Amino acid sequence: MDCRIKSGNDEAMVAQSYTFSERGTTQAIEEGRALLPKFDADGLLTCVATDASGEVLMVAHMNAEALARTVETGEAWYYSRSRRALWRKGESSGHVQRVTEMRIDCDQDAVWIKVEQAGPGACHTGRRSCFYRSVPLGKAPDASLTLEFVEAERAFDPAKVYGGKKD
Amino acid sequence: MDCRIKSGNDEAMVAQSYTFSERGTTQAIEEGRALLPKFDADGLLTCVATDASGEVLMVAHMNAEALARTVETGEAWYYSRSRRALWRKGESSGHVQRVTEMRIDCDQDAVWIKVEQAGPGACHTGRRSCFYRSVPLGKAPDASLTLEFVEAERAFDPAKVYGGKKD
Repeated sequence: MDCRIKSGNDEAMVAQSYTFSERGTTQAIEEGRALLPKFDADGLLTCVATDASGEVLMVAHMNAEALARTVETGEAWYYSRSRRALWRKGESSGHVQRVTEMRIDCDQDAVWIKVEQAGPGACHTGRRSCFYRSVPLGKAPDASLTLEFVEAERAFDPAKVYGGKKD
Repeated sequence: MDCRIKSGNDEAMVAQSYTFSERGTTQAIEEGRALLPKFDADGLLTCVATDASGEVLMVAHMNAEALARTVETGEAWYYSRSRRALWRKGESSGHVQRVTEMRIDCDQDAVWIKVEQAGPGACHTGRRSCFYRSVPLGKAPDASLTLEFVEAERAFDPAKVYGGKKD
């Protein structure tokens, strides 16, 4: 798969095109030192963002351009499936994510970024983390299953911060 | 979407069918206490497994049955996209994952499980974590980009443990 994506002229700071290499052998993908990302049928890979404490802040997706921009700028860029748009985290809220480390997994279809989260939180609902509810374990899930709020209180007012947008 | 999936008769310990509720309103999904998982077009959601230290061990997928079995048994079950099969983590290696906590994200299309990883590692390559290589940041990715091995040494011999299988 050719993952070449040309970025617009509006971002002169970012290189004009990105080409990730062809995938190569399993040995090259799993044991090599070349970045050979595996994008799915929609051109996306999964990204997990955690903070320094190991808390998972969010799970989102990156297309080739989002991945390249994140690598180049050290700030998190994603691709919004719902909006079908490249998305710089914090572009409307100011809640940017500075990436302190990026890891890629064995088959190179997922990345893990450790971030310094600017502002009070990462989640569009106003919480620090998107994972603010726990699922009780030990019995088959049925209608009686009740999620527990681990982080019920909002850290910020999303209506004020996002103004109807998500980022 | 009706996510009813009937499990086989070979697993009497697990309830015979799972039905997750219809999705409901954004308010119900994001602020409610009902488990309303959002499976993608392939019937999957994303699962991130971390250990107690906050290290991301792996990213994988769950279908409705894998999610239900994980909730019920407190052990991690996944769905392998490559093998198109339900997959109990550790079924061939013995490297099972005991789930100490499960969280679900704002739009309920991703879960985060904190696990106690049995055995020396989670990754089929023999490492503790699948995320054993880091991606250098600060310049545009090109052919000169070189991944760095954070965990180069294998914790176990995958050929001996898996015998050609992955789990």
